[in-house]
Amino acid sequence: MRVALGQFNAVVGDLAGNAERMRRIWAGALESDVDLLVFPELAVCGYPPEDLLHKKHFLQDCRTMVEKLASDCPDKTIIVGFPESYQENSFDSAAVLQAGRISKIYRKALLPNYGVFDEQRYFQPGTEPVVIKTGDLNVAVTICEDIWDIKWLGNFLGDAGKIQMILNISASPFHMGKIKQRQEIVRNCAKKFNCAVCYCNLVGGQDELVFDGRSCFADSTGKMATKARAFEEDLLIADIVPVGEEAVQVRPLESPAPQPSDLVDEVYQALVLGTRDYTRKNGFEKALLGLSGGIDSSVTAAIAAAALGAENVVGLTMPSKFSSAETMTDAARVAKNLDIGFLTISIEPILEQFNRSLQPVPGWDDKGVAYENLQARIRGTILMSLSNHFGFLVLTTGNKSETAVGYATLYGDTAGGFAMIKDVPKTLVYKLAEHVNKITGRQVIPADVLNRPPSAELRPGQKDSDALPDYDLLDKILKGYIEEDKSAQQLVESGLPQDVVHKVIRMVDRNEYKRRLSPPGVKITPKAFGKDRRLPITNRYSSSP
Amino acid sequence: MRVALGQFNAVVGDLAGNAERMRRIWAGALESDVDLLVFPELAVCGYPPEDLLHKKHFLQDCRTMVEKLASDCPDKTIIVGFPESYQENSFDSAAVLQAGRISKIYRKALLPNYGVFDEQRYFQPGTEPVVIKTGDLNVAVTICEDIWDIKWLGNFLGDAGKIQMILNISASPFHMGKIKQRQEIVRNCAKKFNCAVCYCNLVGGQDELVFDGRSCFADSTGKMATKARAFEEDLLIADIVPVGEEAVQVRPLESPAPQPSDLVDEVYQALVLGTRDYTRKNGFEKALLGLSGGIDSSVTAAIAAAALGAENVVGLTMPSKFSSAETMTDAARVAKNLDIGFLTISIEPILEQFNRSLQPVPGWDDKGVAYENLQARIRGTILMSLSNHFGFLVLTTGNKSETAVGYATLYGDTAGGFAMIKDVPKTLVYKLAEHVNKITGRQVIPADVLNRPPSAELRPGQKDSDALPDYDLLDKILKGYIEEDKSAQQLVESGLPQDVVHKVIRMVDRNEYKRRLSPPGVKITPKAFGKDRRLPITNRYSSSP
Repeated sequence: MRVALGQFNAVVGDLAGNAERMRRIWAGALESDVDLLVFPELAVCGYPPEDLLHKKHFLQDCRTMVEKLASDCPDKTIIVGFPESYQENSFDSAAVLQAGRISKIYRKALLPNYGVFDEQRYFQPGTEPVVIKTGDLNVAVTICEDIWDIKWLGNFLGDAGKIQMILNISASPFHMGKIKQRQEIVRNCAKKFNCAVCYCNLVGGQDELVFDGRSCFADSTGKMATKARAFEEDLLIADIVPVGEEAVQVRPLESPAPQPSDLVDEVYQALVLGTRDYTRKNGFEKALLGLSGGIDSSVTAAIAAAALGAENVVGLTMPSKFSSAETMTDAARVAKNLDIGFLTISIEPILEQFNRSLQPVPGWDDKGVAYENLQARIRGTILMSLSNHFGFLVLTTGNKSETAVGYATLYGDTAGGFAMIKDVPKTLVYKLAEHVNKITGRQVIPADVLNRPPSAELRPGQKDSDALPDYDLLDKILKGYIEEDKSAQQLVESGLPQDVVHKVIRMVDRNEYKRRLSPPGVKITPKAFGKDRRLPITNRYSSSP
Repeated sequence: MRVALGQFNAVVGDLAGNAERMRRIWAGALESDVDLLVFPELAVCGYPPEDLLHKKHFLQDCRTMVEKLASDCPDKTIIVGFPESYQENSFDSAAVLQAGRISKIYRKALLPNYGVFDEQRYFQPGTEPVVIKTGDLNVAVTICEDIWDIKWLGNFLGDAGKIQMILNISASPFHMGKIKQRQEIVRNCAKKFNCAVCYCNLVGGQDELVFDGRSCFADSTGKMATKARAFEEDLLIADIVPVGEEAVQVRPLESPAPQPSDLVDEVYQALVLGTRDYTRKNGFEKALLGLSGGIDSSVTAAIAAAALGAENVVGLTMPSKFSSAETMTDAARVAKNLDIGFLTISIEPILEQFNRSLQPVPGWDDKGVAYENLQARIRGTILMSLSNHFGFLVLTTGNKSETAVGYATLYGDTAGGFAMIKDVPKTLVYKLAEHVNKITGRQVIPADVLNRPPSAELRPGQKDSDALPDYDLLDKILKGYIEEDKSAQQLVESGLPQDVVHKVIRMVDRNEYKRRLSPPGVKITPKAFGKDRRLPITNRYSSSP
C-alpha cells in the first residue's frame, strides 16, 4: 500500500485556504498512485486554534470544510485532523475520508495540558481506538500525544487485533534537539507493536510556536526508513509492504530529504520560518528594525533578510551622543553586507527637547535610569511611527538572557510586533552570528561586532558587564533556573557562584511584568517565556531566600 | 460547635507573611472560643500561584509552612488550603491541623480548567472524600469547584455516612453578579444534603483577578444565615447546632456585614481593591496617570484616589495644539476635586521636534494616523519617564470597549503598569462616574465631562463617533461577540444592525496583538481579555464571513 504524508503549512483559522492547499496536495498525490494520504493534527483549522474552539460556529465551519474535502476528493483514503463538536463535547479528531464522505472518526485520547499545551481546556479525551482497513493493512489511527506514552498505548490498542501500521498525525512544536526524542518515540512504537509507523507532522510558524515538519516512516524493526524536510512543506511517499506475519517493510519512493546540519542550524531555520510566517500570515510584506551595530540587532537583521528577502527589510540606526563611531559604522556595514534598506535618524534633538520639557519635574536630570530609558523609548517611538507610516512590522532585537533579567526598557527596545530572538540565549546569539557568516561564506556580520564587548550605549562608557555577569555564567544560571526550575541552593550546589546566582534569580523574578508586555517570539528552547512559562506578576516567593 | 471563617487577603508567594496573618487571626478566634477555624483554598501560598507550582522547592516550602502553622496553633482544629506534593503528583489540598500536626488531608477532586483556571496544568484530581469528626459533628471537607456539580457531589459523598456540615474552602474570583450564582450553589448544597454549609472564600487582588470574599453560612433548610464582608478581610463566626437528626441550625455571633448596594457599587469596590492590591503587593506607594479631561481618565483617577489615598495619586495633563480649553480645564478640575497631585507638561515642542526629525522619511507628514499615534506615544513616554524617575506605578485609562476594537495606540495610551478599567465597557464607565459622584455626595466628576462627546483629541475636531458606533450599540455587540461567543449571524438575528456588527467583529479580531501587549487590569465581567480569553494573534478566521 502506498502512503503519502502531506506535511503542509496550515494557517490558523484559514479554513478555506487550508482546504485548498490540501486539495492541491491530493491532486499531486494522485499522480503518484497513492492509496492513503495523511494530513496533520487539526490540519483543517491550524494548530493551536485556542479559544476559537469556544465558538460553536467555528466548529460547525470546520465540520463543513471536512465534508466538502471528502466530497471533493472521493478517490483513495484521506486522513485529516479537525476539531469536532460531538454530543455537547469537543474532540481533537481525525476524520477518515473514503468514497466522498467521512467514514470513521478517531478521537484523541491523551490530551497534553502542560508547557505550551492547553488541550484539556478545550477537548474531552476519546476512549475508543480506531483501526481501519485500507488495502490489505490494518491501520491504527492515533494523534500526537497518544504515542508518547507507549505503555498506555499498549493497553489502549490491546483488543484491537493485529495491526500492520500505526498512523500518527501530529502538531508537535519545535525546540532545539527535540527531534531526537520524537524519532525515538516513533522507533520504539514501531518495535513494540512490530508494525510500520507513519508520522505526519505539521510545519509552519504560529505566534510563539514553530512546527518543524520532519514527518517520517519507521519499519517494524524500528528503523527510520525515510524523513521529510525540516521547516518546509513536503510530500513524503512510501510503500508499506507486509512480509508474512512477521515484519512490515517501508520502501520510500525517494531518497530522504537533507536535514539540518547541527543544533545551531536547526535554530537558525526555526527562526527564519517563524519570522516569515508571523510576518506573512499577519499580512505584512516588510519588516523594520533598529540597527545598533551590536550583535543582537545584526543577527536579527540577517535572519529577517533570509526570512523575508533583503529587499523587504529596513534597518534604522538612531544614534545619540553616546553612540560610538564604531557601532555606527558597523550598523551601516551590516546593512550594506545584507543589502537591506538603511535609514539614519538621530535621536539627539528629540532627546534634548524631552530633557528641556521635563525640566519642571522636581529632581529631573540627565543622569539617572529615567534618562537612559528615555533614549530607548524615543527609539521605540520612532520605529512604531515608521511602522504606522509604512505599514512595516517592527522586529525587536532582545535576546533571552536580557529578557530574563529585565535588561531592557519597557516600551523602549521592547516596543515592536515580533521579538524574533527572545528565546535565544546571548551565547547562542554569537553562534548564530558565526553560522550566518558560515552559510553565506563571507563576513556578513563583521568581526568587530562579534568581538566588541556588548553595550547598550545609554551613558558614556556603559558596558553590559557593569550590570550583568559574564554571559557564559549568566546563561548557565538561567538554564538551571528557568528551564529546569532549580532552586538557588541546587544551582550553588552544582558549582555556580552563590552571590551571582542570588542576584540573577532576583532579577528574573522582579521582571515578570516586563516580559508579560513584550511581543511574541519564536520558542526554540524547552521552556520559553510566554505561554510556556506562566508566572504571576504579583509574587513574593523567592527561590533564593 | 463554633466555627470561624478566616476570610483573609493572602499574597501570592508570601508564605511567611500569609502564615503570620493566619496566626494573628487564630489568636483572635481563640478569644471567641472558636472550635474550628477555616482558611481559604491555597491560603498558604495565595491563589493562583501558576508555574510556581512547577518548582519542587516551592511545594516543599509550602508543606513546611503548614507544619509550622500546625505546631504554632495546637489548640482547636484548623483547616487550611495548600498545594501538596504527594507521591510524584501535586494536589490542591486542604490540611486538617489538630493537636500540633497535620491530622488529615483532603485533595480537591474537581479541577476547573476553563476561563481563568488552569488547574489541570498543575494538579491531579483527588479521589477520596474526607469526613472529619469535630465536636459532635461529622464534617465533609470540600474545595471550591467540588460543590459546583451537586449531582457529582452526591455520588462522591454517597458512602461517607451522615454529615452535619459541608465545609468548602474557595478561591472564587469576582465578576459582576456572580455572587447570586455562588450563593445559590451554597443554598442548594445545604438543602440537598440537609446539613449546614460553611463557605470560606479568599479576598484580595491578584494580577487580573479580584477575590471578593463574602464567605457565608447556610443552614440545613438552605437559608443563608450570615455573610461576611465584601472586598475586605473578615472573621465570620457562627455556632452550628444540630437539632435532632432532622436539621442543623446556624447561629451567627454577629449581625451580617453590609453588602454592596448594587452591581455598579460592586464593580466600584472590585476596582478599588484590585488597584490597591496590585499597587501595594508589587511594592508601589504611589500611582501616576494621564488626565485628559475625559471620562475614562477621570473615573480612573477617582478610583485610584479611593484605592491609594488622594495624596498618593498624581494626574498629569499633557496638552497639544489639538487639546481644547474645555478638556484642559476639566482635567485640572478633576484633580482639584479629588485633591490629587497635578502636573502639566505640554507635548507640543516635543511633537514639533519629532516632526522635524522625521521629515527625511519619505512621505512623512503631520496628517495621518502615524502622526496621531505619535502624540499618544510621546505621552506614554513622558508617563514612563516619570514612573522611572519617581518610582510611581503608571495607570492606563483605556476601557473595555476601546480595548476590544483597538481604539488605542500601542505603546502610547496603552503604556503603563496597570490597566485598571480595561474590562469595564464604556457605558459602565459612565455609571461608575455617576456612582463616584453619588457616594462622595458632590460633583467630583464635572457634568461637562459626563456630557461632552468623547474625543481622543489627536486631530482637529476629532470625535470617537467618527470611527466607532454609538457606545450603547457597540457595547451590546461586544457583549454578544466576546462574552457569549456569538457569530455575526446570531447577532444580526437578535436585531443588531448587520453593517455595524460586521465592522465591529473585524475590528475586534484585527486587534488581538494590541490587547496582548496591554497591561493587566481587573476582571469584572464574565469574560475579560487576558487569560480568560485566549485567542491566537495569527488568525484568519472570521466570525463575520
